[in-house]
Amino acid sequence: MDRGGCKGVKGGRLERVDCRRLDAADPLAHFRERFAAPANGRIFFDANSIGRMPAAVPERVGRLFADDWVGMGRRSWSRGAWLERPRQIGAAFAPLLGALPEDVLAGDSTTVNLFKLLTCAWRARRSGSVILTEAGNFPSDLYVAQGLRGVVEGGPEIRTCAGRGALLDAIGPETAVVYLSHVDYRTSERWDMAEVDARAHAAGALTVWDLSHSAGAIPVDLMGAGADHVDHADYAVGCGYKYLGAGPGGPAWLWVHPRHGGEAWPTICGWMGHEDPFAFDERYAPAPGASRHGAGTPAVIANEVAWCAAEIWREVEPAKLWEKHRRLSGLLIALVEQECGALGVALQSPRDHGRRGGHVSFTHPAAGPVVEALFEAGVVASFRKPDSIRFGPGALNLRYEDVWEAAARLREVLKTGRWRDPRFRQAAV
Amino acid sequence: MDRGGCKGVKGGRLERVDCRRLDAADPLAHFRERFAAPANGRIFFDANSIGRMPAAVPERVGRLFADDWVGMGRRSWSRGAWLERPRQIGAAFAPLLGALPEDVLAGDSTTVNLFKLLTCAWRARRSGSVILTEAGNFPSDLYVAQGLRGVVEGGPEIRTCAGRGALLDAIGPETAVVYLSHVDYRTSERWDMAEVDARAHAAGALTVWDLSHSAGAIPVDLMGAGADHVDHADYAVGCGYKYLGAGPGGPAWLWVHPRHGGEAWPTICGWMGHEDPFAFDERYAPAPGASRHGAGTPAVIANEVAWCAAEIWREVEPAKLWEKHRRLSGLLIALVEQECGALGVALQSPRDHGRRGGHVSFTHPAAGPVVEALFEAGVVASFRKPDSIRFGPGALNLRYEDVWEAAARLREVLKTGRWRDPRFRQAAV
Repeated sequence: MDRGGCKGVKGGRLERVDCRRLDAADPLAHFRERFAAPANGRIFFDANSIGRMPAAVPERVGRLFADDWVGMGRRSWSRGAWLERPRQIGAAFAPLLGALPEDVLAGDSTTVNLFKLLTCAWRARRSGSVILTEAGNFPSDLYVAQGLRGVVEGGPEIRTCAGRGALLDAIGPETAVVYLSHVDYRTSERWDMAEVDARAHAAGALTVWDLSHSAGAIPVDLMGAGADHVDHADYAVGCGYKYLGAGPGGPAWLWVHPRHGGEAWPTICGWMGHEDPFAFDERYAPAPGASRHGAGTPAVIANEVAWCAAEIWREVEPAKLWEKHRRLSGLLIALVEQECGALGVALQSPRDHGRRGGHVSFTHPAAGPVVEALFEAGVVASFRKPDSIRFGPGALNLRYEDVWEAAARLREVLKTGRWRDPRFRQAAV
Repeated sequence: MDRGGCKGVKGGRLERVDCRRLDAADPLAHFRERFAAPANGRIFFDANSIGRMPAAVPERVGRLFADDWVGMGRRSWSRGAWLERPRQIGAAFAPLLGALPEDVLAGDSTTVNLFKLLTCAWRARRSGSVILTEAGNFPSDLYVAQGLRGVVEGGPEIRTCAGRGALLDAIGPETAVVYLSHVDYRTSERWDMAEVDARAHAAGALTVWDLSHSAGAIPVDLMGAGADHVDHADYAVGCGYKYLGAGPGGPAWLWVHPRHGGEAWPTICGWMGHEDPFAFDERYAPAPGASRHGAGTPAVIANEVAWCAAEIWREVEPAKLWEKHRRLSGLLIALVEQECGALGVALQSPRDHGRRGGHVSFTHPAAGPVVEALFEAGVVASFRKPDSIRFGPGALNLRYEDVWEAAARLREVLKTGRWRDPRFRQAAV
């Protein structure tokens, strides 16, 4: 059993001291101080929703306000950074995605980027008329596909399969695009990307992936550099503000495999995707590669926040990040089962880390009130209807001892029945 | 001649004291303190590029970082403001557009919003197969249309007319959509919206307007409340970060006439445009009216900045704003001609305010170096190739005396020939 590298003392029981030992040997421990200290000493298992704030953010954004906006006004446009940030942030995220730096572009929202790239995939299709997706896909992903039918030429049929086996079996000559979230936002169940890519390509279909619940947490290998397979994704997008820490509602990202990079105009042609935006040409001519998918003016302030996160990521060795995330998640499962297993909590996510995404979900019949009571006890997890408790560990800023604390406080909340207090009945989103 | 309400003393010559008199009687003068004091006492005629920063921004954004992001994490999503801001900001901008509050939605970039609404107009077309636009339209607007051809069903023909008369004459039975910028970004020449709307509607066509260089500066009357005509625009979008002051790269806005509001799915269907986003329905169902055009997660930080501007706008009476903008612009023309008319500067924009947009452009053979030297002299204007000097007055934060200063310093730059210094040769964007 995976216990986060923690052996435990006699009888296999894990103790706080075991967690401290792991912290003492943690090669990523020094990144913790790069993030703002949580208010009231709270422990955040929230990276699946909003990654924690880089400590540099307030000062850097304040400087942007004072020096650039108040001090320079429009002249800041010509200073480079404002316009280069989408590429710079994309390049900083790239190693976490197993991507080449020039193939990743930050900007817009995940939904807008899904629309852009699903449309690209549809237009680049080799055969078939079906966009195939999963019933459990995140709603916004499903809506993008449903809406596409009335917009793009050729009117794709959107086929939504329930069940993973059924979906794999449904990939066939009618399939134009396989369109999936890598990780289920509720259970954290993970698709084997290489398997899906191979099946899709064998059927002549292209793949579009949403990596919102994997990028910055678990291994992603878009270019297949570390794999023995030759099939990899065609298009991918992801959220910037979860594990990647780009700030609430901050810029998302998109990736296009270089084999598709130069082949077509982007879905939304705009001046920031032009090969020479400030030439003010009246004819559109696409910028090279992924840059062409930049549409409107970059979100300067939001990008500055994201850049603070990106600067941290540039110092992180992905393999070490992924290893710590694996250990934190394994330890969390082991400790929650040890401390709370007899108190109605059961693992919902796959036990095998290789089949899990960024977060770990447990079930409890009163998950909503339990999450509320746990928040009051200083541990921030999240509730998903009907009965899931989700923990999303941010590996750059959580200690192993925080995992101990989370399990201990969850035990306390359950054992004392504190969650039964009427004020916890109104569960948070 | 329009002289900004300034009579001048003997001989009609305008003096600084005349400007001071206007400032003393200015009913909007108190808004000046709501904006951050410019660094080094600079005078910004830059609202056509980046409106000045509301003074509340640093503190409010700092509070968002500390209280919401660091303090609450994901739980801030359920606090309302984060998700309501796009509608709240839209409602605050609405009076400046002559729109109903519920028909304006803030978010995404101008380019993305142009793509959304031009696609809507194309899908809602009654007849014709041509999207008609102007050769001098802003490049990103042109690119959106050019790119649309390969994306949407029905393959619109994009016809680009040079010359305003030619465009009006070209509106006919083949025209599906007339797609224009209200104000030319170089010369500030303004279309008569009501005339174009009437011509388009008579021909069975719909209209899509980009109001980036008019909203927040000059009268806009999207619902035709103050007009004796019955034709008004069908769709409009605009930049948030120019006159509206939403911060560099901040949220743009879109408007849909209520007659089109409920008729179709939006172009990009996303969870924020769903009638009940947190129900996590697997079937898309549009929110009412303009709200359905919300796509991805709101840009929380950028929206907080925009909200600081929106809070100021909610206190502004549009008629007073437009009147002050008219006076500032008229005074600028009068003073620049009086002080610099013999020094090679000539008015490029229409002299009649009713035919002008937010900025005033002048020509000078060495416009680039002159703008640089003027910046060093503490006045921020902008240069557009080949020979334009643009002044974009922000009526909430400029004094009439600032206009005097700008003209006097421009005179000084020209008279001394200071702009000939080699360091000014490299003109800014």
